[in-house]
Amino acid sequence: MMKTLKIENCNVECAVSQADIAALKGKAAEAMEKLHKGNGAGNDFLGWLNLPGTTDEALIADIEAAARALQGCEYVVAIGIGGSYLGAKAVIEALSDSFACFKPANGPRVLFAGQNIGEDYLYELMELLKGKKFGIIVISKSGTTTEPAIAFRMLKELLEAQVGKAEASKLIVAITDAKKGALRKLATEEGYKTFVIADNVGGRFSVLTPVGLLPIAAAGFDIRALLAGAKAMEEKTATSGDDNISEVYAMTRNALYNAGKKIEILVNYNPKLHYFGEWWKQLYGESEGKDGKGIFPAAVDNSTDLHSMGQWIQDGERTIFETVISVEEQKYTAVIPTDEANLDGLNYIAGKRVDEVNKMAELGTQIAHVDGNVPNIKVTLPALTEYHLGELIYFFEKACGISGYILDVNPFNQPGVEAYKKNMFALLNKPGYEAESAAIQARLK
Amino acid sequence: MMKTLKIENCNVECAVSQADIAALKGKAAEAMEKLHKGNGAGNDFLGWLNLPGTTDEALIADIEAAARALQGCEYVVAIGIGGSYLGAKAVIEALSDSFACFKPANGPRVLFAGQNIGEDYLYELMELLKGKKFGIIVISKSGTTTEPAIAFRMLKELLEAQVGKAEASKLIVAITDAKKGALRKLATEEGYKTFVIADNVGGRFSVLTPVGLLPIAAAGFDIRALLAGAKAMEEKTATSGDDNISEVYAMTRNALYNAGKKIEILVNYNPKLHYFGEWWKQLYGESEGKDGKGIFPAAVDNSTDLHSMGQWIQDGERTIFETVISVEEQKYTAVIPTDEANLDGLNYIAGKRVDEVNKMAELGTQIAHVDGNVPNIKVTLPALTEYHLGELIYFFEKACGISGYILDVNPFNQPGVEAYKKNMFALLNKPGYEAESAAIQARLK
Repeated sequence: MMKTLKIENCNVECAVSQADIAALKGKAAEAMEKLHKGNGAGNDFLGWLNLPGTTDEALIADIEAAARALQGCEYVVAIGIGGSYLGAKAVIEALSDSFACFKPANGPRVLFAGQNIGEDYLYELMELLKGKKFGIIVISKSGTTTEPAIAFRMLKELLEAQVGKAEASKLIVAITDAKKGALRKLATEEGYKTFVIADNVGGRFSVLTPVGLLPIAAAGFDIRALLAGAKAMEEKTATSGDDNISEVYAMTRNALYNAGKKIEILVNYNPKLHYFGEWWKQLYGESEGKDGKGIFPAAVDNSTDLHSMGQWIQDGERTIFETVISVEEQKYTAVIPTDEANLDGLNYIAGKRVDEVNKMAELGTQIAHVDGNVPNIKVTLPALTEYHLGELIYFFEKACGISGYILDVNPFNQPGVEAYKKNMFALLNKPGYEAESAAIQARLK
Repeated sequence: MMKTLKIENCNVECAVSQADIAALKGKAAEAMEKLHKGNGAGNDFLGWLNLPGTTDEALIADIEAAARALQGCEYVVAIGIGGSYLGAKAVIEALSDSFACFKPANGPRVLFAGQNIGEDYLYELMELLKGKKFGIIVISKSGTTTEPAIAFRMLKELLEAQVGKAEASKLIVAITDAKKGALRKLATEEGYKTFVIADNVGGRFSVLTPVGLLPIAAAGFDIRALLAGAKAMEEKTATSGDDNISEVYAMTRNALYNAGKKIEILVNYNPKLHYFGEWWKQLYGESEGKDGKGIFPAAVDNSTDLHSMGQWIQDGERTIFETVISVEEQKYTAVIPTDEANLDGLNYIAGKRVDEVNKMAELGTQIAHVDGNVPNIKVTLPALTEYHLGELIYFFEKACGISGYILDVNPFNQPGVEAYKKNMFALLNKPGYEAESAAIQARLK
C-alpha cells in the first residue's frame, strides 16, 4: 500500500486532554457541513474544495504545453505576490537541489519578482536578465496590484527591448481573471498565452490552480503527481469523522488555542521546507487573524533554529505549541565517516546515515519540548515528492477551512490587507484617492 | 556630518505613553551599570561590550590575511550553527547582490554547512564541491557540537581526498577555543590556521569576533568599516541617558511587554535583511526567553509579507508590536517606466524610483498598523553598508543586554538549549549517556 501523510496528536496532553479535543467534534462536523454544503461565511470562495478531483486533463495538458514552450529560456520569472507567489515558491524549493543555482540546469531557472518593492532587488534582477533569453509568467487577478504591476512593467519593457514586441509576446504567459481587468485586456491585445484565475479560489488557496502549477511545471516538476496527491487527500477528508485528519488537526489546534496557546510554530527538520512554512503562515494567518482573534503563526527550521529560537521555545512564556512536519525518507544517502583519531568524539555515530541523527534530534526535541509544556502535533510526510506535497497542501487547506469555521471567523476573506494599500495609494496621490490624499497629508503635518 | 542610525518611538502610544516608557529609566540606568561595572547576572560573558573599541589592528590584519589566503578557492564553506552561523550569514546576505549566485564571482562564494542535519543538504553540497577547489572555515568552541562536527568530518574527508592532507590543512581555518577542546587539538596536530573564540563572548554576541569577521571578509566585504560602525555605536551608547538609543529601544519594548504586547515583529522592507531578522531572533529570543517569560521574537519581510501576515497584524489579537528597520538610501537606481497604454494604471507613479513607492508602502503600513493598535518602533539605517550594519549590530546587542536586565533575567545564558541535546545523545547511545539512554528508552516503550 502506498504510504500516506499521517498526523499524531497524542503529545498535547500537557495543555489539553483528548476529551477537550473531542468536545470540538460537533463544531468540526458543522464546519465540514458548511464547507461541503457551501452555506458558511465566504462561501463564494470555495472553489479550492473540489479542485484536485475536478481539474480536467485538458487544463493539465495546456499547462504542461505552456511550460514546454518556455523550456528554451535560461530564466523564467514568475511575477506575483502573496498566494500568487508562495505556493509555487514553496513547492519548487521543497523539490529542488539546495545548491541548484550553482549547478548546471536542464531547463529554465525559475526566479521570482513582484513579491517585493526592493529597488536593488529589481535592479539586480534586470542586470542578470540583460542579454539573456528569459520568459515571464505574470500572475495577477486584476493586473493592477502594485508590486507585481511594477515588476511586470519593468521586465516587459526589458524583454521587448531585447527580442522585440512580437517575440516577447510569445515569451509571456498571463494568469489572470477570465474576462475583466487590466492584465486580461493587455493579454488579449498582445496575444499572450493565458490561464484563468477562477473567481471562487482565493489567492492563498490557489497553488493547485495554474497560479502555482505553471511555475512548478516550468521548473521541471510533475504537476500530475502533485494533483494526484491532493486528490487522494481530498477523498480522504471528504466526510466528517475520526478518520478525517484535517478535522483532527483543526480540532486539536483550536482546543490548544482555547487553552491559552496563542502561537503555533510550524517546525521542519529539512531546510527545503522553509518556504512551505511561509506558505502555511499565509494560509492560516490570513484565514484566521481577524476580528481580534486567531493563532499567531510562526515557523522554524530545525535543527538550525534550535540554536536560535530553541531557548525561547524550551523556557519562555508557555503560550506556544508546535506542529512538526517530519519527512520520513530522504532522497539521497550520506553516511557519517569513521575517523581514526576521533577527536570530535563522533565515532559513536560513524556509519549511520545523517538522517538517523536528524531523526534523533527531532525525537529528542519533541520529548524535551513536551517536558517543557509545549504541546506537540506531528505530521509525517513519507517523502519530499510531488505526490506527498500535494497531500500536505490539501491537508492544510482543508484543515484551514474547518479551523476557521470552528473559530467562528470567515476563513476566506482578508479585509485587513486593504488598509496599507489605501494609505499607500493616498500617499502616492493615485487618481481617485484625492480625498484620502488630502486627509493623510493633513495627518502627517 | 556622517549619517547615523536613529530610532523613533513616538508611534507606540496606542499601548503605552511616553511616561510609561520613562518610568523604566531607573531600571535602564541600573542595567547599564550592571553591564559596565560587570556585576550583573552572566557577567562572565561581557566580552562583546567593548569589543569594537578594543579589536586591535593585528587581529584585523590577521583575519584579512586569512581571507586572502582563501581567495583562490571557488567556494569557502563556513561551518557553524547558531551564533557561529547567523551573524556572518546576515551580514553577507545584506551586502550581496540578490542574484549573486547566477552572476560571475570575483572571489570565493561563501556557503554554509553544519547549521542543520539535512542529509540531502549535505549530499547536495558534497556533490557540488566534488572536483572543485574549496576551503573550509570551521567554527566551534568545543569542536564537538553535533551539527558542525558532522559537516566538518564529511567535508574534511572530501577535501583531503581531493587535494591530499597537506594541501587540505592549508585550506582549513579553525575558529575555536584558545587552548582546550577537540577542534583546538585537531588544529594543532594538523597545523590549521586558527582564530580564538574568547571565553567571555557568547555565540549570539560573536559576529564582530573572527567568528563573523572571517566569513564576511572571505566573502569580500570590508570588516574594518563594519567594526568602525560598531565602534561608533559603542561610543554613542556608552553612558546612560536620553541620548542612548539602545536604552530607548530597551525601555520601549519592555514597557510594551508590560502592557501585554507579547510578540515583537521585526519588519524590513528590503529582502536582503531577511537573515538579519534571523540573527535578531536568536539574539533576543535566546537572551530573554527564559524563566517562563520574554517577548516572542518574529520577523517579516515586507511588502512580501503584507500579503501573508498582513491580515493577522492588522486585525488579529492585539498582543503584538513592530520594530521596523527602514533603509534610507538604496544602492542602485531603478525608475518605473511610462507606458502609453497605461492599462495597469501605473502611470501616476511613472518616473518615480521604485524605492519611492516602497517608502510609501512603509509609511502607509505604519499608519494602518498604528491605527489598528499595533505600536510601531522605527529604526532608520542610512544605507545597507558595512559601517551602518556595524552600527545596527552593536545597537541591538547593547539594547539586548539592557533589555534582559530590565526584564530581570540573565541575558547571557541559554540553559534551555541543552535539553534537546541531552535527549538526542541519549537516543543515539552516546558514550557517557548510558543512564539517560536507558531512561529515555524506557519512556518510549
